[in-house]
Amino acid sequence: MVPHLVSRWPVWLFRCRAAYTPGAPVQQKTWAWMSSAAPWGIVGTSPLVCRHSSSTSSRAPEVMLTHKRYPVRRLPFSVVSEEDLAAFERMVPGRVVTDPEELEASNVDWLRTVRGCSKVLLRPRTSEEVSRILRYCHERNLAVNPQGGNTGMVGGSVPVFDEIILSTALMNQVISFHDVSGILVCQAGCVLEELSRHVEQRDFIMPLDLGAKGSCHIGGNLATNAGGLRFLRYGSLHGTVLGMEVVLANGTILSGLTSLRKDNTGYDLKQLFIGSEGTLGVITAVSILCPPKPKAVNVAFLGCPGFAEVLQTFSSCKGMLGEILSAYEFMDAECMQLVGHHLQLASPVQESPFYVLIETSGSRAEHDAEKLSDFLEQVLGSGLVTDGTLATDQRKIKALWALRERITEALSLDGYVYKYDVSLPVERLYDLVTELRARLSPRAKHVVGYGHLGDGNLHLNVTAEAFSASLLGDLEPYVYEWTAGQQGSVSAEHGVGFKKKDILGYSKPPEALQLMQQLKALLDPKGILNPYKTLPSQA
Amino acid sequence: MVPHLVSRWPVWLFRCRAAYTPGAPVQQKTWAWMSSAAPWGIVGTSPLVCRHSSSTSSRAPEVMLTHKRYPVRRLPFSVVSEEDLAAFERMVPGRVVTDPEELEASNVDWLRTVRGCSKVLLRPRTSEEVSRILRYCHERNLAVNPQGGNTGMVGGSVPVFDEIILSTALMNQVISFHDVSGILVCQAGCVLEELSRHVEQRDFIMPLDLGAKGSCHIGGNLATNAGGLRFLRYGSLHGTVLGMEVVLANGTILSGLTSLRKDNTGYDLKQLFIGSEGTLGVITAVSILCPPKPKAVNVAFLGCPGFAEVLQTFSSCKGMLGEILSAYEFMDAECMQLVGHHLQLASPVQESPFYVLIETSGSRAEHDAEKLSDFLEQVLGSGLVTDGTLATDQRKIKALWALRERITEALSLDGYVYKYDVSLPVERLYDLVTELRARLSPRAKHVVGYGHLGDGNLHLNVTAEAFSASLLGDLEPYVYEWTAGQQGSVSAEHGVGFKKKDILGYSKPPEALQLMQQLKALLDPKGILNPYKTLPSQA
Repeated sequence: MVPHLVSRWPVWLFRCRAAYTPGAPVQQKTWAWMSSAAPWGIVGTSPLVCRHSSSTSSRAPEVMLTHKRYPVRRLPFSVVSEEDLAAFERMVPGRVVTDPEELEASNVDWLRTVRGCSKVLLRPRTSEEVSRILRYCHERNLAVNPQGGNTGMVGGSVPVFDEIILSTALMNQVISFHDVSGILVCQAGCVLEELSRHVEQRDFIMPLDLGAKGSCHIGGNLATNAGGLRFLRYGSLHGTVLGMEVVLANGTILSGLTSLRKDNTGYDLKQLFIGSEGTLGVITAVSILCPPKPKAVNVAFLGCPGFAEVLQTFSSCKGMLGEILSAYEFMDAECMQLVGHHLQLASPVQESPFYVLIETSGSRAEHDAEKLSDFLEQVLGSGLVTDGTLATDQRKIKALWALRERITEALSLDGYVYKYDVSLPVERLYDLVTELRARLSPRAKHVVGYGHLGDGNLHLNVTAEAFSASLLGDLEPYVYEWTAGQQGSVSAEHGVGFKKKDILGYSKPPEALQLMQQLKALLDPKGILNPYKTLPSQA
Repeated sequence: MVPHLVSRWPVWLFRCRAAYTPGAPVQQKTWAWMSSAAPWGIVGTSPLVCRHSSSTSSRAPEVMLTHKRYPVRRLPFSVVSEEDLAAFERMVPGRVVTDPEELEASNVDWLRTVRGCSKVLLRPRTSEEVSRILRYCHERNLAVNPQGGNTGMVGGSVPVFDEIILSTALMNQVISFHDVSGILVCQAGCVLEELSRHVEQRDFIMPLDLGAKGSCHIGGNLATNAGGLRFLRYGSLHGTVLGMEVVLANGTILSGLTSLRKDNTGYDLKQLFIGSEGTLGVITAVSILCPPKPKAVNVAFLGCPGFAEVLQTFSSCKGMLGEILSAYEFMDAECMQLVGHHLQLASPVQESPFYVLIETSGSRAEHDAEKLSDFLEQVLGSGLVTDGTLATDQRKIKALWALRERITEALSLDGYVYKYDVSLPVERLYDLVTELRARLSPRAKHVVGYGHLGDGNLHLNVTAEAFSASLLGDLEPYVYEWTAGQQGSVSAEHGVGFKKKDILGYSKPPEALQLMQQLKALLDPKGILNPYKTLPSQA
């Protein structure tokens, strides 16, 4: 996730401060337009804005090679030869990258935790080129690592050994957009933020939004079944993706770029590839349904005295905001301290144990404002919320969102980060953070919890000065066992990739893992597509 | 689709009549509460209310056996023996049905167009019983026809020959419902309408609704990827189904009844079974996300002077109703004549070439009313709509919905029905009806078009006094070629079943059909699950 820049905090907030007195009537709460400087900090530029820039190479220390850090053995794939390079040069002339400097950014994940040693990166422009490359690799038994924006969290987008990197970066054309239906058809390498701009100019929005929007590719979003910030409102990609073009391991092009909301002509094959992380085929183009652009968007940023209040505020807002609710995110006080310390962002509200970001998106501003105002009055009046601030224009909304979206960045500046992304029943969501904090103290620098509460999705992060096997031993399998004990998912939205492939058993029964292996064997019998990923290594 | 009963038209409508004069200001339109008798007809009971009742057997003529009407040959499955029946009796004691009278209703589809000759129907209560049955059938090479409510439109739910009917009727238990998240977990044989009642008592609704709700099973809904009346708002089952338990052909139970909105732990296997029509596994239980029950529901029934106005009204209503729009259905004048003639329902609005049903569902009645009122004023004022009526309470809303939902029933009373269910670009949606009307006249009694316009889904129906091969020859492949020419789908929501399996090539490329066959071979190598369905017969 590569956060976007917010160069400074502007002076603008429609600000509410409760000055709450228990028992006082709701009317005494004051909501006022702020006309003077907001009590926020100022941020500078982020060192992580573009990890592909030369600045990344100056960062020490160098990332350890994956196969040196993890117990993984190279499978008996062929090694890329000079003849292979010449063949690729004929397939994608001038788009065969072998310069080690250029390859570096694609061999290392953006979190700088895994590193492959690929010697070649290919940049096809069309599905036919992808087809030719895969047919060749399939015949030659060459392993291939499909790569989009390389913004994944689980080491799924970089090679483990010397797999050929197949980049979608030049497959970045919008094929069509239908102004009435909102159906976008585009190549897989389109950057999410650019697609957003494209459809927003036509009064639609993309059905998904991520912190990584400035770098991630739509094909990668589908391959990893990205969730993100609009999931609560617009649901899963399994629902919004209408069609797909995929190139299979042997080079077969599976065309299915239909632009129909309903199509029950047999098995819905595209679903297989959503979330398969490039292990079953390479997604080359996408047809996706874009919702109409909301005429009014509001973001409220609130302080809550406890997690129970975070949950009750969620219930209230589902009831009172109903169909206009588009996001319900939470972060704890330690998250706010981290964005304050590392990114010089100050809280826009009084210091609180928890913070909640609520977004509404609706078709009529005055109706939305009335719903939101009634809701805020109620949660302030009942003490569920102790302080809050509200933004209505896009620039300001982005700034509030940055507080939540830049947590990942702040964490990465705090030291070594142990990252977990779990789904849990909302009632128990924060218990895991509390229990871990007690379990690890004082060896961890920070144990923080934040995430998409509306989707039951917790991002649990632990920072320490450096990697420690003993700390890891206290975290794993504890976190996974705890999650499995709640019938949760050990990977909510980040996927499996290289790092999580051996913990699937905590969330999936053996029969399911076996069927996964069978599907892999059916679609990629030589196992050349994104090897060492997604499927448990033992089977 | 088995329509529900509406015993009489009540006196109630909040009625608007435009008396539109071009150029007159919008304010001159009159909207008034009707306090006297509404200008509607009275309906009696429907002969199709329950096709499983004894009345069905008295209807002549008997349905021709499928294998006598269609060119299909029995595959070399074993024949059920006395030993098999004894074995089944041990597995599901007292729940092995062999009485021909009782079997009749399950051997014939509700449209009375296809008929199998199964000699045995099994009624398991648990997944373990289903597992034992399938393991046995797999070993014995006995073919199995999974059956839910038997409400399908394409002959997918009844045997073609003597397949064992595996009914989900007794697997009808709700397992759990979570009052905060709205996640329902239940067995596959629960009737949709009963589930609706269950969750509505808890302030949620089912994410899908069908005319067949009184009979169809949720497992069958998933197996056929049912679309229906709420699709526009709540989307596809691929998005709303969270978990599933499936028994594979060899008896393996694939457990995946998770109740998580996000779970990216490997391939999303449940997606394979949604829409696979019982050919890859038998769905035995379901976890599904229910949306909150809207606090306000309104239905407007409008008359439009032409199809262009139907489309423009749709654009207007998407813009002005936004997030509260929950259905946009249309029907043509011939549909209204048919429901009038066969079901004695009179139009609630002035006779028009087209009628539109718009439903809104929202969280705040006064906001919804204001949006709807502004929208109606605009479409009446601009001449897009010439007459309209509005309902706000549930009983009255149901009555308006019945006009649209009972078209199928009226058609079946009109003679032999040729049924098509296609997805098309909305701009061209009605052209197919117009062209067919010209092409077939006067040999067809009626050529009608109606459907889920908001989803680009046209139900095209042609009635004639009796089946005629020559009329069929004029319809097919014309309808399919026309649809394929528009990059449409030859089966939007009704699925493939027995009747559409050989037309998939109009909407799917050969590579996709081949992958379907490979998936079938992987999951059901002996082909015992719902044979002769879903997959093209030649391959």
